[in-house]
Amino acid sequence: MKKIEIVQNILEANESIASQNQRLLDEYKVFAINIMSSPGAGKTSLILQTIARLKDKLRIGVVEGDFASTIDADKVKDEAAAVVQITTRNMSEQCALIANMVSHALKCLPLGDIDLLLIENVGNLLCPAEFVLGEHRRVVISSLPEGDDKPIKYPVIFADADAVVINKLDFLPYVDFDIAAFEKAIKRLNPGVKILQVSCKTGAGIENWCSWLLDELKANRIGK
Amino acid sequence: MKKIEIVQNILEANESIASQNQRLLDEYKVFAINIMSSPGAGKTSLILQTIARLKDKLRIGVVEGDFASTIDADKVKDEAAAVVQITTRNMSEQCALIANMVSHALKCLPLGDIDLLLIENVGNLLCPAEFVLGEHRRVVISSLPEGDDKPIKYPVIFADADAVVINKLDFLPYVDFDIAAFEKAIKRLNPGVKILQVSCKTGAGIENWCSWLLDELKANRIGK
Repeated sequence: MKKIEIVQNILEANESIASQNQRLLDEYKVFAINIMSSPGAGKTSLILQTIARLKDKLRIGVVEGDFASTIDADKVKDEAAAVVQITTRNMSEQCALIANMVSHALKCLPLGDIDLLLIENVGNLLCPAEFVLGEHRRVVISSLPEGDDKPIKYPVIFADADAVVINKLDFLPYVDFDIAAFEKAIKRLNPGVKILQVSCKTGAGIENWCSWLLDELKANRIGK
Repeated sequence: MKKIEIVQNILEANESIASQNQRLLDEYKVFAINIMSSPGAGKTSLILQTIARLKDKLRIGVVEGDFASTIDADKVKDEAAAVVQITTRNMSEQCALIANMVSHALKCLPLGDIDLLLIENVGNLLCPAEFVLGEHRRVVISSLPEGDDKPIKYPVIFADADAVVINKLDFLPYVDFDIAAFEKAIKRLNPGVKILQVSCKTGAGIENWCSWLLDELKANRIGK
Protein backbone atom coordinates (compact mmCIF):
# COMPACT_ATOMS: atom_id res chain seq x y z
CA MET A 1 0.00 0.00 0.00
CA LYS A 2 3.02 2.27 0.35
CA LYS A 3 2.96 3.54 -3.24
CA ILE A 4 -0.76 4.31 -3.16
CA GLU A 5 -0.36 6.27 0.10
CA ILE A 6 2.42 8.33 -1.48
CA VAL A 7 0.31 8.99 -4.57
CA GLN A 8 -2.49 10.13 -2.24
CA ASN A 9 -0.11 12.51 -0.48
CA ILE A 10 1.11 13.90 -3.80
CA LEU A 11 -2.46 14.54 -4.95
CA GLU A 12 -3.37 16.26 -1.65
CA ALA A 13 -0.26 18.44 -1.80
CA ASN A 14 -1.14 19.26 -5.41
CA GLU A 15 -4.66 20.35 -4.47
CA SER A 16 -3.36 22.64 -1.78
CA ILE A 17 -0.93 24.36 -4.20
CA ALA A 18 -3.70 24.55 -6.83
CA SER A 19 -5.90 26.41 -4.33
CA GLN A 20 -3.09 28.89 -3.71
CA ASN A 21 -2.72 29.36 -7.49
CA GLN A 22 -6.43 30.04 -7.83
CA ARG A 23 -6.39 32.58 -4.99
CA LEU A 24 -3.52 34.40 -6.72
CA LEU A 25 -5.34 34.34 -10.06
CA ASP A 26 -8.52 35.64 -8.39
CA GLU A 27 -6.61 38.41 -6.67
CA TYR A 28 -5.38 39.61 -10.08
CA LYS A 29 -8.75 38.80 -11.75
CA VAL A 30 -7.12 36.42 -14.22
CA PHE A 31 -9.48 33.77 -15.61
CA ALA A 32 -7.54 30.53 -16.22
CA ILE A 33 -8.34 27.61 -18.53
CA ASN A 34 -6.57 24.23 -18.44
CA ILE A 35 -6.55 22.80 -21.99
CA MET A 36 -5.99 19.05 -22.24
CA SER A 37 -5.94 16.55 -25.12
CA SER A 38 -4.09 13.71 -26.85
CA PRO A 39 -0.91 14.66 -28.71
CA GLY A 40 -1.79 16.52 -31.89
CA ALA A 41 -5.49 17.10 -31.21
CA GLY A 42 -5.12 20.86 -31.58
CA LYS A 43 -4.35 22.53 -28.24
CA THR A 44 -1.88 25.04 -29.72
CA SER A 45 -4.13 25.65 -32.75
CA LEU A 46 -7.10 26.41 -30.48
CA ILE A 47 -4.96 28.80 -28.43
CA LEU A 48 -3.81 30.61 -31.59
CA GLN A 49 -7.39 30.86 -32.91
CA THR A 50 -8.59 32.14 -29.53
CA ILE A 51 -5.92 34.84 -29.39
CA ALA A 52 -6.63 35.89 -33.00
CA ARG A 53 -10.35 36.25 -32.22
CA LEU A 54 -10.17 37.80 -28.74
CA LYS A 55 -6.94 39.79 -28.58
CA ASP A 56 -8.73 43.11 -29.03
CA LYS A 57 -11.09 42.32 -26.14
CA LEU A 58 -8.79 40.56 -23.68
CA ARG A 59 -5.12 40.47 -22.74
CA ILE A 60 -4.24 36.80 -23.09
CA GLY A 61 -1.34 35.01 -21.40
CA VAL A 62 -0.26 31.46 -22.17
CA VAL A 63 1.47 28.74 -20.17
CA GLU A 64 2.88 26.10 -22.51
CA GLY A 65 3.42 22.66 -20.98
CA ASP A 66 5.48 20.23 -23.02
CA PHE A 67 7.55 17.16 -22.25
CA ALA A 68 10.62 18.14 -24.20
CA SER A 69 10.32 20.97 -26.71
CA THR A 70 9.53 24.68 -26.94
CA ILE A 71 7.83 24.34 -30.36
CA ASP A 72 4.42 25.44 -29.10
CA ALA A 73 5.74 28.38 -27.11
CA ASP A 74 7.61 29.53 -30.23
CA LYS A 75 4.37 29.42 -32.23
CA VAL A 76 2.45 31.40 -29.60
CA LYS A 77 5.05 33.92 -28.39
CA ASP A 78 4.40 36.66 -30.96
CA GLU A 79 0.63 36.43 -30.50
CA ALA A 80 0.09 36.28 -26.75
CA ALA A 81 0.54 39.12 -24.26
CA ALA A 82 2.98 36.86 -22.34
CA VAL A 83 4.12 33.24 -22.58
CA VAL A 84 5.83 30.95 -20.09
CA GLN A 85 7.16 27.54 -21.13
CA ILE A 86 7.20 24.58 -18.71
CA THR A 87 9.24 21.60 -19.90
CA THR A 88 8.44 18.55 -17.77
CA ARG A 89 11.13 16.13 -19.00
CA ASN A 90 13.40 16.48 -15.96
CA MET A 91 10.67 17.11 -13.40
CA SER A 92 9.34 14.66 -10.82
CA GLU A 93 6.08 14.47 -12.77
CA GLN A 94 6.72 14.26 -16.51
CA CYS A 95 3.43 13.24 -18.07
CA ALA A 96 1.27 16.19 -16.98
CA LEU A 97 1.47 19.69 -15.59
CA ILE A 98 1.06 19.85 -11.81
CA ALA A 99 0.09 22.81 -9.63
CA ASN A 100 3.63 23.41 -8.40
CA MET A 101 4.91 23.96 -11.96
CA VAL A 102 2.08 26.41 -12.64
CA SER A 103 2.82 28.20 -9.38
CA HIS A 104 6.35 28.92 -10.66
CA ALA A 105 4.97 29.97 -14.05
CA LEU A 106 2.55 32.45 -12.40
CA LYS A 107 5.54 34.17 -10.75
CA CYS A 108 7.01 34.81 -14.21
CA LEU A 109 3.81 36.28 -15.68
CA PRO A 110 2.68 39.93 -15.47
CA LEU A 111 -0.65 38.93 -13.87
CA GLY A 112 -1.81 42.53 -13.55
CA ASP A 113 -1.72 42.81 -17.35
CA ILE A 114 -3.56 39.58 -18.14
CA ASP A 115 -7.30 38.90 -18.29
CA LEU A 116 -7.31 35.35 -19.64
CA LEU A 117 -4.66 32.68 -19.03
CA LEU A 118 -4.66 29.68 -21.39
CA ILE A 119 -2.69 26.76 -19.94
CA GLU A 120 -1.72 24.14 -22.53
CA ASN A 121 -1.19 20.85 -20.72
CA VAL A 122 1.13 18.02 -21.86
CA GLY A 123 -0.43 15.93 -24.67
CA ASN A 124 -1.96 13.02 -22.75
CA LEU A 125 -5.54 11.86 -22.00
CA LEU A 126 -4.66 10.15 -18.71
CA CYS A 127 -2.25 11.89 -16.31
CA PRO A 128 -3.52 15.49 -16.69
CA ALA A 129 -6.93 14.33 -15.43
CA GLU A 130 -5.35 13.63 -12.03
CA PHE A 131 -3.94 17.08 -11.34
CA VAL A 132 -5.82 20.32 -10.80
CA LEU A 133 -3.67 23.40 -11.42
CA GLY A 134 -5.76 26.21 -9.97
CA GLU A 135 -7.65 26.76 -13.22
CA HIS A 136 -11.24 28.06 -13.33
CA ARG A 137 -12.34 25.80 -16.19
CA ARG A 138 -11.10 22.48 -17.58
CA VAL A 139 -11.37 21.93 -21.33
CA VAL A 140 -10.69 18.69 -23.23
CA ILE A 141 -10.12 18.72 -27.00
CA SER A 142 -10.90 15.57 -28.96
CA SER A 143 -10.20 15.49 -32.70
CA LEU A 144 -12.09 13.49 -35.32
CA PRO A 145 -9.14 11.38 -36.55
CA GLU A 146 -8.68 9.96 -33.02
CA GLY A 147 -12.00 8.11 -33.27
CA ASP A 148 -15.31 8.43 -31.45
CA ASP A 149 -14.51 5.86 -28.74
CA LYS A 150 -12.30 8.11 -26.63
CA PRO A 151 -14.90 8.95 -23.91
CA ILE A 152 -15.34 5.21 -23.28
CA LYS A 153 -11.61 4.54 -23.19
CA TYR A 154 -10.51 7.62 -21.21
CA PRO A 155 -13.61 8.46 -19.14
CA VAL A 156 -11.99 10.33 -16.22
CA ILE A 157 -10.73 13.30 -18.22
CA PHE A 158 -14.13 13.73 -19.94
CA ALA A 159 -16.14 13.26 -16.74
CA ASP A 160 -14.38 16.16 -15.11
CA ALA A 161 -14.34 18.67 -18.02
CA ASP A 162 -16.34 21.91 -18.14
CA ALA A 163 -16.21 21.86 -21.94
CA VAL A 164 -15.28 19.35 -24.63
CA VAL A 165 -14.14 20.81 -27.95
CA ILE A 166 -14.51 18.50 -30.95
CA ASN A 167 -11.76 19.67 -33.31
CA LYS A 168 -10.77 18.91 -36.93
CA LEU A 169 -14.37 19.02 -38.08
CA ASP A 170 -12.98 19.48 -41.60
CA PHE A 171 -11.98 15.78 -41.48
CA LEU A 172 -15.62 14.64 -41.27
CA PRO A 173 -15.79 13.42 -44.91
CA TYR A 174 -12.68 11.24 -44.44
CA VAL A 175 -13.27 9.52 -41.09
CA ASP A 176 -15.82 7.20 -39.52
CA PHE A 177 -16.77 9.38 -36.58
CA ASP A 178 -20.29 9.33 -35.19
CA ILE A 179 -20.62 12.80 -33.61
CA ALA A 180 -24.03 12.01 -32.06
CA ALA A 181 -22.70 8.83 -30.40
CA PHE A 182 -19.60 10.68 -29.21
CA GLU A 183 -21.66 13.49 -27.66
CA LYS A 184 -24.02 10.98 -26.07
CA ALA A 185 -21.10 9.10 -24.49
CA ILE A 186 -19.74 12.35 -23.05
CA LYS A 187 -23.14 13.47 -21.73
CA ARG A 188 -23.53 10.09 -20.03
CA LEU A 189 -20.30 10.72 -18.11
CA ASN A 190 -20.88 14.41 -17.61
CA PRO A 191 -24.45 15.69 -18.17
CA GLY A 192 -23.65 19.38 -17.58
CA VAL A 193 -20.69 19.64 -19.95
CA LYS A 194 -20.64 22.14 -22.82
CA ILE A 195 -19.77 20.51 -26.16
CA LEU A 196 -18.47 22.64 -29.02
CA GLN A 197 -17.60 21.62 -32.58
CA VAL A 198 -14.77 23.49 -34.28
CA SER A 199 -12.18 23.33 -37.00
CA CYS A 200 -9.08 25.24 -36.00
CA LYS A 201 -7.95 24.92 -39.62
CA THR A 202 -10.98 26.55 -41.29
CA GLY A 203 -12.08 28.61 -38.28
CA ALA A 204 -15.54 27.00 -38.21
CA GLY A 205 -17.10 27.10 -34.75
CA ILE A 206 -14.37 29.28 -33.23
CA GLU A 207 -16.86 32.09 -32.70
CA ASN A 208 -19.07 29.82 -30.57
CA TRP A 209 -16.04 28.66 -28.58
CA CYS A 210 -15.01 32.26 -27.92
CA SER A 211 -18.58 33.19 -26.91
CA TRP A 212 -18.59 30.36 -24.39
CA LEU A 213 -15.22 31.50 -23.06
CA LEU A 214 -16.39 35.13 -22.68
CA ASP A 215 -19.63 34.06 -20.98
CA GLU A 216 -17.72 31.89 -18.50
CA LEU A 217 -15.23 34.66 -17.83
CA LYS A 218 -18.05 37.14 -17.19
CA ALA A 219 -19.95 34.68 -14.99
CA ASN A 220 -16.82 34.11 -12.93
CA ARG A 221 -15.74 37.67 -12.29
CA ILE A 222 -16.37 41.32 -12.76
CA GLY A 223 -14.07 42.69 -15.48
CA LYS A 224 -10.96 44.56 -14.48
CA MET B 1 14.44 13.03 -3.11
CA LYS B 2 12.12 10.41 -1.63
CA LYS B 3 9.76 10.28 -4.59
CA ILE B 4 12.58 9.97 -7.13
CA GLU B 5 14.12 7.08 -5.15
CA ILE B 6 10.80 5.29 -5.09
CA VAL B 7 10.35 5.80 -8.84
CA GLN B 8 13.85 4.35 -9.30
CA ASN B 9 12.92 1.30 -7.24
CA ILE B 10 9.72 0.81 -9.21
CA LEU B 11 11.63 0.94 -12.51
CA GLU B 12 14.24 -1.54 -11.26
CA ALA B 13 11.57 -3.95 -10.01
CA ASN B 14 9.83 -3.57 -13.37
CA GLU B 15 12.99 -4.49 -15.28
CA SER B 16 13.48 -7.59 -13.20
CA ILE B 17 9.90 -8.80 -13.85
CA ALA B 18 10.28 -7.90 -17.55
CA SER B 19 13.37 -10.15 -17.74
CA GLN B 20 11.35 -13.01 -16.20
CA ASN B 21 8.61 -12.39 -18.78
CA GLN B 22 11.11 -12.53 -21.61
CA ARG B 23 12.63 -15.77 -20.31
CA LEU B 24 9.16 -17.32 -20.21
CA LEU B 25 8.40 -16.10 -23.74
CA ASP B 26 11.75 -17.47 -24.97
CA GLU B 27 11.10 -20.82 -23.34
CA TYR B 28 7.86 -21.10 -25.32
CA LYS B 29 9.40 -19.48 -28.43
CA VAL B 30 6.86 -16.70 -28.43
CA PHE B 31 8.04 -13.50 -30.17
CA ALA B 32 6.52 -10.46 -28.42
CA ILE B 33 5.96 -6.93 -29.73
CA ASN B 34 5.04 -3.93 -27.56
CA ILE B 35 2.89 -1.54 -29.64
CA MET B 36 2.71 2.03 -28.38
CA SER B 37 1.10 5.25 -29.67
CA SER B 38 -1.12 8.24 -28.89
CA PRO B 39 -4.82 7.52 -28.42
CA GLY B 40 -6.40 6.77 -31.79
CA ALA B 41 -3.21 6.42 -33.86
CA GLY B 42 -4.16 2.90 -34.98
CA LYS B 43 -2.77 0.27 -32.58
CA THR B 44 -5.85 -1.96 -32.78
CA SER B 45 -6.17 -1.42 -36.54
CA LEU B 46 -2.54 -2.47 -37.06
CA ILE B 47 -3.10 -5.57 -34.92
CA LEU B 48 -6.22 -6.50 -36.95
CA GLN B 49 -4.37 -5.97 -40.25
CA THR B 50 -1.42 -8.03 -39.00
CA ILE B 51 -3.65 -10.94 -37.96
CA ALA B 52 -5.55 -10.83 -41.28
CA ARG B 53 -2.27 -10.97 -43.23
CA LEU B 54 -0.33 -13.47 -41.08
CA LYS B 55 -2.88 -15.78 -39.47
CA ASP B 56 -2.17 -18.61 -41.91
CA LYS B 57 1.56 -18.44 -41.13
CA LEU B 58 1.59 -17.70 -37.40
CA ARG B 59 -0.58 -18.29 -34.36
CA ILE B 60 -1.08 -14.80 -32.97
CA GLY B 61 -1.99 -13.90 -29.40
CA VAL B 62 -2.92 -10.41 -28.23
CA VAL B 63 -2.66 -8.58 -24.91
CA GLU B 64 -4.95 -5.55 -24.90
CA GLY B 65 -4.01 -2.79 -22.48
CA ASP B 66 -6.61 -0.12 -21.89
CA PHE B 67 -7.36 2.37 -19.14
CA ALA B 68 -11.05 1.65 -18.82
CA SER B 69 -12.75 -0.27 -21.61
CA THR B 70 -12.69 -3.66 -23.35
CA ILE B 71 -13.57 -2.15 -26.77
CA ASP B 72 -10.30 -3.20 -28.40
CA ALA B 73 -10.32 -6.73 -26.98
CA ASP B 74 -13.88 -7.13 -28.31
CA LYS B 75 -12.69 -6.08 -31.79
CA VAL B 76 -9.78 -8.51 -31.73
CA LYS B 77 -11.23 -11.54 -29.95
CA ASP B 78 -12.68 -13.34 -32.97
CA GLU B 79 -9.52 -12.84 -35.01
CA ALA B 80 -6.66 -13.72 -32.65
CA ALA B 81 -5.70 -17.20 -31.39
CA ALA B 82 -6.06 -15.86 -27.83
CA VAL B 83 -6.71 -12.46 -26.23
CA VAL B 84 -6.17 -11.18 -22.69
CA GLN B 85 -7.45 -7.79 -21.58
CA ILE B 86 -5.62 -5.69 -18.99
CA THR B 87 -7.61 -2.72 -17.65
CA THR B 88 -5.31 -0.35 -15.78
CA ARG B 89 -7.87 2.00 -14.22
CA ASN B 90 -7.67 0.53 -10.73
CA MET B 91 -4.02 -0.53 -10.84
CA SER B 92 -1.10 1.22 -9.14
CA GLU B 93 0.15 2.33 -12.57
CA GLN B 94 -2.71 3.57 -14.76
CA CYS B 95 -1.10 5.35 -17.67
CA ALA B 96 0.90 2.45 -19.16
CA LEU B 97 1.27 -1.31 -19.05
CA ILE B 98 3.98 -2.50 -16.66
CA ALA B 99 5.80 -5.84 -16.60
CA ASN B 100 3.83 -7.15 -13.63
CA MET B 101 0.53 -6.79 -15.49
CA VAL B 102 1.97 -8.61 -18.50
CA SER B 103 3.30 -11.35 -16.22
CA HIS B 104 -0.27 -12.04 -15.08
CA ALA B 105 -1.51 -11.92 -18.68
CA LEU B 106 1.11 -14.48 -19.77
CA LYS B 107 -0.27 -16.92 -17.19
CA CYS B 108 -3.68 -16.69 -18.87
CA LEU B 109 -2.36 -17.32 -22.40
CA PRO B 110 -1.75 -20.73 -24.04
CA LEU B 111 1.90 -19.87 -24.75
CA GLY B 112 2.61 -23.27 -26.33
CA ASP B 113 0.06 -22.47 -29.03
CA ILE B 114 1.29 -18.94 -29.83
CA ASP B 115 4.11 -17.83 -32.16
CA LEU B 116 3.63 -14.08 -32.08
CA LEU B 117 2.30 -12.00 -29.18
CA LEU B 118 1.11 -8.47 -29.98
CA ILE B 119 0.86 -6.31 -26.86
CA GLU B 120 -1.27 -3.18 -27.28
CA ASN B 121 -0.15 -0.63 -24.72
CA VAL B 122 -2.32 2.13 -23.22
CA GLY B 123 -2.72 5.10 -25.62
CA ASN B 124 -0.01 7.47 -24.41
CA LEU B 125 3.30 8.76 -25.83
CA LEU B 126 4.92 9.34 -22.44
CA CYS B 127 4.47 6.73 -19.68
CA PRO B 128 4.80 3.54 -21.82
CA ALA B 129 8.34 4.66 -22.78
CA GLU B 130 9.37 4.16 -19.15
CA PHE B 131 8.37 0.53 -18.75
CA VAL B 132 9.80 -2.51 -20.52
CA LEU B 133 7.45 -5.48 -20.45
CA GLY B 134 9.66 -8.35 -21.59
CA GLU B 135 8.93 -7.72 -25.27
CA HIS B 136 11.45 -8.52 -28.03
CA ARG B 137 10.68 -5.45 -30.11
CA ARG B 138 9.20 -2.02 -29.34
CA VAL B 139 7.05 -0.38 -32.02
CA VAL B 140 5.67 3.18 -32.01
CA ILE B 141 2.82 4.17 -34.31
CA SER B 142 2.49 7.82 -35.31
CA SER B 143 -0.44 8.90 -37.48
CA LEU B 144 -0.48 11.76 -39.99
CA PRO B 145 -3.28 13.81 -38.36
CA GLU B 146 -1.21 14.08 -35.15
CA GLY B 147 1.36 16.27 -36.93
CA ASP B 148 5.01 15.79 -37.85
CA ASP B 149 6.42 17.39 -34.68
CA LYS B 150 5.87 14.38 -32.40
CA PRO B 151 9.50 13.10 -32.38
CA ILE B 152 10.62 16.53 -31.15
CA LYS B 153 7.92 16.73 -28.49
CA TYR B 154 8.03 13.10 -27.26
CA PRO B 155 11.64 12.04 -28.02
CA VAL B 156 12.08 9.25 -25.45
CA ILE B 157 9.52 6.85 -26.92
CA PHE B 158 10.93 7.32 -30.45
CA ALA B 159 14.59 7.06 -29.34
CA ASP B 160 13.97 3.63 -27.88
CA ALA B 161 11.81 2.08 -30.65
CA ASP B 162 12.89 -0.74 -32.96
CA ALA B 163 10.35 0.39 -35.55
CA VAL B 164 8.18 3.44 -36.13
CA VAL B 165 5.03 2.89 -38.18
CA ILE B 166 3.63 6.00 -39.89
CA ASN B 167 -0.10 5.26 -40.12
CA LYS B 168 -3.09 6.94 -41.83
CA LEU B 169 -1.10 7.54 -45.01
CA ASP B 170 -4.49 7.98 -46.75
CA PHE B 171 -4.75 11.36 -44.95
CA LEU B 172 -1.75 12.77 -46.80
CA PRO B 173 -3.83 14.98 -49.17
CA TYR B 174 -5.65 16.58 -46.20
CA VAL B 175 -2.86 17.32 -43.72
CA ASP B 176 0.33 19.36 -43.55
CA PHE B 177 2.70 16.54 -42.69
CA ASP B 178 6.29 16.58 -43.97
CA ILE B 179 7.16 12.86 -44.06
CA ALA B 180 10.83 13.53 -44.93
CA ALA B 181 11.23 15.92 -41.98
CA PHE B 182 9.44 13.48 -39.67
CA GLU B 183 11.70 10.59 -40.69
CA LYS B 184 14.80 12.78 -40.36
CA ALA B 185 13.81 13.80 -36.83
CA ILE B 186 13.34 10.14 -35.86
CA LYS B 187 16.64 9.06 -37.42
CA ARG B 188 18.40 11.83 -35.51
CA LEU B 189 17.11 10.33 -32.24
CA ASN B 190 17.49 6.73 -33.33
CA PRO B 191 19.68 6.07 -36.39
CA GLY B 192 19.05 2.31 -36.52
CA VAL B 193 15.25 2.42 -36.37
CA LYS B 194 13.11 0.86 -39.10
CA ILE B 195 10.48 3.28 -40.44
CA LEU B 196 7.41 1.94 -42.25
CA GLN B 197 4.58 3.84 -43.94
CA VAL B 198 1.14 2.24 -43.85
CA SER B 199 -2.55 2.89 -44.08
CA CYS B 200 -4.46 0.44 -41.91
CA LYS B 201 -7.62 1.70 -43.66
CA THR B 202 -6.58 0.92 -47.26
CA GLY B 203 -4.01 -1.79 -46.44
CA ALA B 204 -1.19 0.12 -48.15
CA GLY B 205 2.22 -0.81 -46.74
CA ILE B 206 0.89 -3.62 -44.53
CA GLU B 207 2.83 -6.19 -46.56
CA ASN B 208 6.11 -4.39 -45.81
CA TRP B 209 5.22 -4.19 -42.12
CA CYS B 210 4.47 -7.91 -42.03
CA SER B 211 7.73 -8.71 -43.87
CA TRP B 212 9.67 -6.74 -41.27
CA LEU B 213 7.82 -8.58 -38.50
CA LEU B 214 8.58 -12.00 -40.02
CA ASP B 215 12.24 -11.12 -40.59
CA GLU B 216 12.63 -9.97 -36.98
CA LEU B 217 10.88 -13.08 -35.70
CA LYS B 218 13.15 -15.32 -37.76
CA ALA B 219 16.28 -13.40 -36.74
CA ASN B 220 15.29 -13.79 -33.11
CA ARG B 221 14.52 -17.49 -32.97
CA ILE B 222 14.31 -20.77 -34.78
CA GLY B 223 10.64 -21.48 -35.61
CA LYS B 224 8.70 -23.91 -33.47
